[in-house]
Amino acid sequence: MVLGLGTGSTAAFAVAEIGALLASGKLSGIVGVPTSKRTFEQAQSLGIPLSTLDDHPRIDLAIDGADEVDPDLNLVKGRGGALLREKMVEAASDKFIVVVDETKLVTGLGGSGLAMPVEVVQFCWKYNQVRLQDLFNDEGCEAKLRLDEGGKPYVTDNSNYIVDLYFKTPIKDALAAGKEISALEGVVEHGLFLDMATSVIIAGTDGVSVKTK
Amino acid sequence: MVLGLGTGSTAAFAVAEIGALLASGKLSGIVGVPTSKRTFEQAQSLGIPLSTLDDHPRIDLAIDGADEVDPDLNLVKGRGGALLREKMVEAASDKFIVVVDETKLVTGLGGSGLAMPVEVVQFCWKYNQVRLQDLFNDEGCEAKLRLDEGGKPYVTDNSNYIVDLYFKTPIKDALAAGKEISALEGVVEHGLFLDMATSVIIAGTDGVSVKTK
Repeated sequence: MVLGLGTGSTAAFAVAEIGALLASGKLSGIVGVPTSKRTFEQAQSLGIPLSTLDDHPRIDLAIDGADEVDPDLNLVKGRGGALLREKMVEAASDKFIVVVDETKLVTGLGGSGLAMPVEVVQFCWKYNQVRLQDLFNDEGCEAKLRLDEGGKPYVTDNSNYIVDLYFKTPIKDALAAGKEISALEGVVEHGLFLDMATSVIIAGTDGVSVKTK
Repeated sequence: MVLGLGTGSTAAFAVAEIGALLASGKLSGIVGVPTSKRTFEQAQSLGIPLSTLDDHPRIDLAIDGADEVDPDLNLVKGRGGALLREKMVEAASDKFIVVVDETKLVTGLGGSGLAMPVEVVQFCWKYNQVRLQDLFNDEGCEAKLRLDEGGKPYVTDNSNYIVDLYFKTPIKDALAAGKEISALEGVVEHGLFLDMATSVIIAGTDGVSVKTK
């Protein structure tokens, strides 16, 4: 079984558990395709056999967290900075299972007030920052370059920058928004993961529930 | 006047001429926005005042060459490797003038049998090479990673790779093809410049002609 391995705090628990199951012999015959350098390093340290999309272009199942989940199981992802590789791997997966706690549920994407990331080439990032903000006049949007802990521009695994979009009200039409963002030259990927998740596992104060498409 | 400065052998002549006109005082009051590091260096050496899209998001006029021009003034560009920055600058231009010799005229894009470049992130480029080739089964397409003179992968100004597509027959529907290529995760830009050129100046054996949209 070829398994897409997500990135972030929730995905790290799943990767750790897969490593433990392999070590105990309860799981076997799996190959992991990591979605970031971080996850690659974690999975490698746990002895999980690893591969890439180049050698395994079809993935049976991917597991990852998400930053927002709407009622149609559309997602915002990428606050961890790995949105491009996550989207490449998860779009190639027959099944894509998302694990979140109930604080991630929103009525509309962008509704958490937290970042919706857009990966852009470094060249003329300010130009694209302005264009991205201007796309969302209706929602009220502030576009900010993501900085690292030292105050320098955060650089993705693909040598790009991230412009984070903060919305005052949820995105009205996420499908149209995704197309408009992608159409801007210099945009590499965005954090709207639309019509991709097949199941969402939600940890709440009353226990665990599962939503399936 | 803000002037977009193209990249490649034809554009280099235009940049040289602009430099000469400025030096002689026949031209003044212009700011150039270069489309590559090479053009930046050439223009800087000629004393042309330079800026970027960040500071000049609207450009009055861009001048560049092209690799193919079809009867509707749609183009293939980017054999010089600068397709992303060229497209960013030229899409921001009120007028975009293309200068070619008549050998660049084709009845359909891809029809020259030479490369139509696609800029992709380095991550899992083989996966995207296969996906790009598979998009054009009807046309007959060979997708090859571009190599530099030393036989290593060619790296763009944006730290990406280029997959060159070679078609046996012209692309049937260039607009649909552009959308399908852009929809692949990990594709940063492609060399189809559709509905962008406002005029094409064509140097032929019988003299110079101009086509305008």
